[in-house]
Amino acid sequence: MIVNISPRGSMDQLSQLEVDRLKQNASSELYQLFRNCSLAVLASGLQSDNAQGLFEQYSNFNINVLRRERGIKIELVNPPEAAFVDGQIIAGIQEHLFAVLRDIVYLSDRYDNLKHINLTNSNHITNVVFDILRNAQVIPRQEPNVAVCWGGHSINEVEYQYTREVGYELGLRSLNICTGCGPGAMEGPMKGAAIGHAKQRVRNARYIGLTEPSIIAAEPPNQIVNELVILPDIEKRLEAFVRLGHGIIIFPGGAGTAEELLYLLGILLNKENASTPFPLILTGPKESADYFTKIDQFIGATLGEEAQRKYQIIVDDPVQVARIMSHGMDEIKLHRKDTGDSYQYNWSLKVEPEFQLPFDPSHEMMTNLNLYFQPNKAELAANLRRAFSGIVAGNVKMETIKEITRLGPFELKGDETLMNMMDELLAAFVSQQRMKLPGSEYVPCYKIVK
Amino acid sequence: MIVNISPRGSMDQLSQLEVDRLKQNASSELYQLFRNCSLAVLASGLQSDNAQGLFEQYSNFNINVLRRERGIKIELVNPPEAAFVDGQIIAGIQEHLFAVLRDIVYLSDRYDNLKHINLTNSNHITNVVFDILRNAQVIPRQEPNVAVCWGGHSINEVEYQYTREVGYELGLRSLNICTGCGPGAMEGPMKGAAIGHAKQRVRNARYIGLTEPSIIAAEPPNQIVNELVILPDIEKRLEAFVRLGHGIIIFPGGAGTAEELLYLLGILLNKENASTPFPLILTGPKESADYFTKIDQFIGATLGEEAQRKYQIIVDDPVQVARIMSHGMDEIKLHRKDTGDSYQYNWSLKVEPEFQLPFDPSHEMMTNLNLYFQPNKAELAANLRRAFSGIVAGNVKMETIKEITRLGPFELKGDETLMNMMDELLAAFVSQQRMKLPGSEYVPCYKIVK
Amino acid sequence: MIVNISPRGSMDQLSQLEVDRLKQNASSELYQLFRNCSLAVLASGLQSDNAQGLFEQYSNFNINVLRRERGIKIELVNPPEAAFVDGQIIAGIQEHLFAVLRDIVYLSDRYDNLKHINLTNSNHITNVVFDILRNAQVIPRQEPNVAVCWGGHSINEVEYQYTREVGYELGLRSLNICTGCGPGAMEGPMKGAAIGHAKQRVRNARYIGLTEPSIIAAEPPNQIVNELVILPDIEKRLEAFVRLGHGIIIFPGGAGTAEELLYLLGILLNKENASTPFPLILTGPKESADYFTKIDQFIGATLGEEAQRKYQIIVDDPVQVARIMSHGMDEIKLHRKDTGDSYQYNWSLKVEPEFQLPFDPSHEMMTNLNLYFQPNKAELAANLRRAFSGIVAGNVKMETIKEITRLGPFELKGDETLMNMMDELLAAFVSQQRMKLPGSEYVPCYKIVK
Amino acid sequence: MIVNISPRGSMDQLSQLEVDRLKQNASSELYQLFRNCSLAVLASGLQSDNAQGLFEQYSNFNINVLRRERGIKIELVNPPEAAFVDGQIIAGIQEHLFAVLRDIVYLSDRYDNLKHINLTNSNHITNVVFDILRNAQVIPRQEPNVAVCWGGHSINEVEYQYTREVGYELGLRSLNICTGCGPGAMEGPMKGAAIGHAKQRVRNARYIGLTEPSIIAAEPPNQIVNELVILPDIEKRLEAFVRLGHGIIIFPGGAGTAEELLYLLGILLNKENASTPFPLILTGPKESADYFTKIDQFIGATLGEEAQRKYQIIVDDPVQVARIMSHGMDEIKLHRKDTGDSYQYNWSLKVEPEFQLPFDPSHEMMTNLNLYFQPNKAELAANLRRAFSGIVAGNVKMETIKEITRLGPFELKGDETLMNMMDELLAAFVSQQRMKLPGSEYVPCYKIVK
Repeated sequence: MIVNISPRGSMDQLSQLEVDRLKQNASSELYQLFRNCSLAVLASGLQSDNAQGLFEQYSNFNINVLRRERGIKIELVNPPEAAFVDGQIIAGIQEHLFAVLRDIVYLSDRYDNLKHINLTNSNHITNVVFDILRNAQVIPRQEPNVAVCWGGHSINEVEYQYTREVGYELGLRSLNICTGCGPGAMEGPMKGAAIGHAKQRVRNARYIGLTEPSIIAAEPPNQIVNELVILPDIEKRLEAFVRLGHGIIIFPGGAGTAEELLYLLGILLNKENASTPFPLILTGPKESADYFTKIDQFIGATLGEEAQRKYQIIVDDPVQVARIMSHGMDEIKLHRKDTGDSYQYNWSLKVEPEFQLPFDPSHEMMTNLNLYFQPNKAELAANLRRAFSGIVAGNVKMETIKEITRLGPFELKGDETLMNMMDELLAAFVSQQRMKLPGSEYVPCYKIVK
Repeated sequence: MIVNISPRGSMDQLSQLEVDRLKQNASSELYQLFRNCSLAVLASGLQSDNAQGLFEQYSNFNINVLRRERGIKIELVNPPEAAFVDGQIIAGIQEHLFAVLRDIVYLSDRYDNLKHINLTNSNHITNVVFDILRNAQVIPRQEPNVAVCWGGHSINEVEYQYTREVGYELGLRSLNICTGCGPGAMEGPMKGAAIGHAKQRVRNARYIGLTEPSIIAAEPPNQIVNELVILPDIEKRLEAFVRLGHGIIIFPGGAGTAEELLYLLGILLNKENASTPFPLILTGPKESADYFTKIDQFIGATLGEEAQRKYQIIVDDPVQVARIMSHGMDEIKLHRKDTGDSYQYNWSLKVEPEFQLPFDPSHEMMTNLNLYFQPNKAELAANLRRAFSGIVAGNVKMETIKEITRLGPFELKGDETLMNMMDELLAAFVSQQRMKLPGSEYVPCYKIVK
Repeated sequence: MIVNISPRGSMDQLSQLEVDRLKQNASSELYQLFRNCSLAVLASGLQSDNAQGLFEQYSNFNINVLRRERGIKIELVNPPEAAFVDGQIIAGIQEHLFAVLRDIVYLSDRYDNLKHINLTNSNHITNVVFDILRNAQVIPRQEPNVAVCWGGHSINEVEYQYTREVGYELGLRSLNICTGCGPGAMEGPMKGAAIGHAKQRVRNARYIGLTEPSIIAAEPPNQIVNELVILPDIEKRLEAFVRLGHGIIIFPGGAGTAEELLYLLGILLNKENASTPFPLILTGPKESADYFTKIDQFIGATLGEEAQRKYQIIVDDPVQVARIMSHGMDEIKLHRKDTGDSYQYNWSLKVEPEFQLPFDPSHEMMTNLNLYFQPNKAELAANLRRAFSGIVAGNVKMETIKEITRLGPFELKGDETLMNMMDELLAAFVSQQRMKLPGSEYVPCYKIVK
Repeated sequence: MIVNISPRGSMDQLSQLEVDRLKQNASSELYQLFRNCSLAVLASGLQSDNAQGLFEQYSNFNINVLRRERGIKIELVNPPEAAFVDGQIIAGIQEHLFAVLRDIVYLSDRYDNLKHINLTNSNHITNVVFDILRNAQVIPRQEPNVAVCWGGHSINEVEYQYTREVGYELGLRSLNICTGCGPGAMEGPMKGAAIGHAKQRVRNARYIGLTEPSIIAAEPPNQIVNELVILPDIEKRLEAFVRLGHGIIIFPGGAGTAEELLYLLGILLNKENASTPFPLILTGPKESADYFTKIDQFIGATLGEEAQRKYQIIVDDPVQVARIMSHGMDEIKLHRKDTGDSYQYNWSLKVEPEFQLPFDPSHEMMTNLNLYFQPNKAELAANLRRAFSGIVAGNVKMETIKEITRLGPFELKGDETLMNMMDELLAAFVSQQRMKLPGSEYVPCYKIVK
């Protein structure tokens, strides 16, 4: 089956050189990246978080960029049927395909040409993240109104309904939603907000999805996302969340959610950020109250009371969550006005290089992580973040899964008390089926070495 | 509490005379109509189908039209709190308030001035219905795409989810939704469609609600409705449905749904409409299969096999429902093009006066209904329609409820077999809690006299 | 030649009854009105102010309203070629055709049905004018920004360039233009403003044209007009100007311009309007300075110094004209806000019935005009206005021209000094070719009886 | 005087790095470029083609980019007053300021980073031109509709009116206008088209202006231009014209116009372009007929009959000019569809490096130009183009003018007959005041050495 897709949303004109660069070519890394991200986007209708399974199932899928009289078209060879309704591609997916194209073209251009820029420089990284987001046109002239929702792709039905209700109340308050753009807690708030926005007649409501090449296949963007951006790696994606978003709501989740929370706390613990308003709420239905108690205890025991003061836990009260987020926007607006910082990109938030530099979770890197208590809480947060990041990679990223298969699970070493706490937390994630979608048994990709 | 509301959507400029006519005045029928419809609209967030209860609870509610430098404003005195989010009126309700104002002003103008037009003339009625709809700007230059959804305001959770799924599939096919604009089967398809439309990036999706003054308080428009029209009476509302809508989906419901089905079958049985394509689907989840079997038997026994051929019953298959509706649109488009009939107002559908002239369900009228089998199936359908219409009035319309309280239940007389069948059908509606929202016990407003 | 025209701008859906009423029919007054106004609109590209000539030249022109699947179409039989560019109708004319249709349908509906409203009641007339304008959607929610430009349809090249320059400066200040919608001083400011608006990127700039059936053929709407309204008679058109417009600029003109100035001064002299801000500027190039000296003298001698204080004469200074108009808008905004009057319809301006009731310029009425000095300046202004109105009719309105042909010129009688002044003023208009477009010799339609 | 200007049109968000790069700094080439182009844009209201005079007059002008909460602002220190109306910057100029910012930021980014791309490669140059135009968003998904108008910035009043009339007829045919964006023949067609577009209700009419840093000050963009692009040099600007434009109309002009005609003929004479439809019309009022006769003779004598067949000369017939252009668009559409080439960027037009590589008109380069007849007409065209290009630079570009002052006029050498023809043509340009705006005496910057 071959289908030609017209542009929608962005990037409808490419130069000859750009088209040439994207030519189908088994040995071209760029083409593979483009193909795989496109396939992930097309697979958004399928219920699966198994990237490798997806790639195997659609091994005969191909994609080509064609130049036509009105601009470019995308040719799909053997795409997943779920992307179509009665033979027509779903408009949301069509938009995502061209967002992928836009970002791949842009990144390939930037990263070839920016090599002389020192991307270990914190300031440069922040500018590059801005550049990618601006190119994707997700930095509009608006007042603060972006609520980021983090949480698991694999959550239970009660939690899912709860995320919808929170989204609905956010939508009623005309807030926009930004998530990691997969299913579960990344989709529920958007669906709820869509109803709230409809009731409030919000035109141009924004459903922002931030992803990156190694995660997109396991967590394909849900089709409500109408502003999809593919950042080059997990660290730039995390930075995009905290600079673009104005407040963050964390729903129950697994290792990925823990990674996100640790990343954010590590930054908020930075003294330079002490006066920056940043609403952070952990919330879930009453059935999930225990989940947050455990997280809270872990944070308290590792990062201390100061870290705990950075967030509120709200159980079973979507209206209250939305109200706090909404009032937070007013506070942020005042603060940015006072400091002259951009409403839509939080330049003044200090992010240390340890939270910016890509962490490559090899067995060696994982084993060598410094997982001991220490007075510098931000640094501990950074290391814990890396530990969870590695586990996420071991769960869903194809490359890492292959390494695990080859070399066995990661070994994590550190302070015994800390190790026990991590062990307990991760065990809870596993037993609550938060690590993978139900249906397959979860085989841990890590081992706590005590 | 006094709140001033700015215009949204329609009717933002009124003349001095128009404002004067709407002045608060206990003895002004027009003001009472305006006040009550506005209160109904403001009550859309409340879960109740008890109009009288609503009016009693908000007896100190008032509304005034103010002239201001930019146009008019509406002043609300003691409105229901549920219409507001954090002190701001919900935009959907705000829009509805001005739709009420528009239609009340228009009808008062038309019906004073149109007295010399003979409104017993079928042709004139059809033109007046057109006129009202056009004034409400619900006749756009578009191709056929309006799916009408009928069904009960009081349906169970499984049925409600099913209506959402059907709406979702309709939305994925970019179809617009038109309902009676209350809760239950009138809301579910709109919510579902909103998600489908979001995924398909349908801008200007239409959620049309058609209501009338005597029903609006019992079935307040849900807030997703973005094109609300208040027709002057039930018969013009029904005519609006069949001329504006392109196909009709019937979900489970009670007496009102039966009224609607009988109305439509009565019209489709008219020989002049034999070649008019009009997709009609009865559908519900598998748990409700039995409901449709009963309806189907009743239709077969009363209106015969020909009537049964006018609809399809589809159980538990939202995709199939949406596909048939979608293909039906293509057929309608071709047919209208061939016949030169309007895409958006089905002028050529023949509607006999017996389906147009207002039926006033007094005790006398109800008792005198000719409920006997007869060869003219359309006429039988008309009378059955009236019987169910009277029962709806007895259930939810305040005036009729008062009469029932004063004089006892309506007495329905007719052929014994027919009476038994009606009895059985109505008893099923009662036992399935389709007559009134759960929470109150249903006391029948009718008695079958055998 | 037969051409079908699709709707543009307004009125794209008509009911069966409405279409029937407009059916081609030699004896239908409504059809004739519709046909003649449509022909006038189609003739806007022709350089002529000879209505009768136009009707004779296009005696085989016909127009029909067709109902089609998307709404109505207009069928033109033998339309003037100048309305087309390379076989395509000019979009501006297309829009005007449907504006004509809209207003004719509306007026016919209103005036049949409004007979029981006493249209001699000043208040009712003002409401009807509002109603017509609102139906034409020319009462937006905007701040005061409408500059009315009055002046002759027959002006010389220097004056024409001057009107363009004034329009350009108005456009640079983002003001909208409203005129009588013909050529000359009614077109120049719009052309100039179009350039000014382009430079200021004014979207939705408004070029409002107000006309009436008896004048439209002699002064067809220029094609830049994007909001055309056909008022039922000259008095309602004048009222529309003063209620819709926020300030008025008067360029050189003939009898029509004199009528307009006298109308406006009569109203502004009303004590109830004493505190109403209403910028009024008489302006022209330095070559036309003498013209305004004469007008000013006439006003001084008849209506006195108080009347002269109502306007400013500005010679050869487009920037100054535009600045005064622009500052006037701010003042008006404040005043309307204070008084709660509408920004877009000057309800509080007092217009006496003598300026509202239609004046039918028969020979008898003209002879009987009370043209004597009197202390009530407003009444004198009203009578002088009628005298000039009659002369305009005698110059350009077909019915009146026929009467003149039959009975000879109007005879105007009154105070000798006054008569001499009128005589002189009119003689100047004639010698400056302001009464008719150059090319034909002007034969006066009046006689001053001293 | 200090004024802060908000963004309009494009580039409203800059990164910290970008803002830093543009910081006011006497020694920064980039800042000087930015400042000078901005000053040119602000000077568009002044009547002058003297760049040096402008820079001297506004030597105390400065510009700064400020970061604010909603994005950036531009701070102007001592800007020309003519850019303001009653204290407000003209929106067109405001737009141009941000277009300058956008292109300067983009070029600085590209040209630093693109150094490893071989910009002597013809294909790369074409891609870079595309890239710049796409970044400026002037490559929409539209059908062919861009008419390029070339001609002098200094033309007489009759010619100017003629360019307006041609523009008007183009506008009536809904064609867009692209020019070099200065006054004279670059402004007239836009003004005329604005009126035509208004009559045709063309929304989003395009008035494209293509300029380059060394010419912008002498020919500041007129304020109607709503898509301004600053290309890096004259050759890329010329390539932008022929790839973006669909047909070209040449009005009378001086050396620059001759340069443009020779450039285009050189390309159209390329055999690979033989079948490419490219409407090319030389036109002017009847008073200028002689001008085109001379040009035609020069072309015939130098490039031969084949070159003459590439254009039509049309005297005094704006309707005919517009019709040919309009029909040409249909032909182009078909051709591009057949060949699959882009509707909005003429990729398949072959442009040889000799027309792409920047020509730096030093005295040495000018003297060494090979101005001899030769069989390869395209090469002769290329050299003649360079000769005229040098003369334009000597007339208006500040750097070149300084060199001329220092070293005396350019010396052009070559075949005597050819030299005589050039001499005659240039003398005619001088005597007709086409080289510079009237008011200053023209001192030739060249000498023909025979």
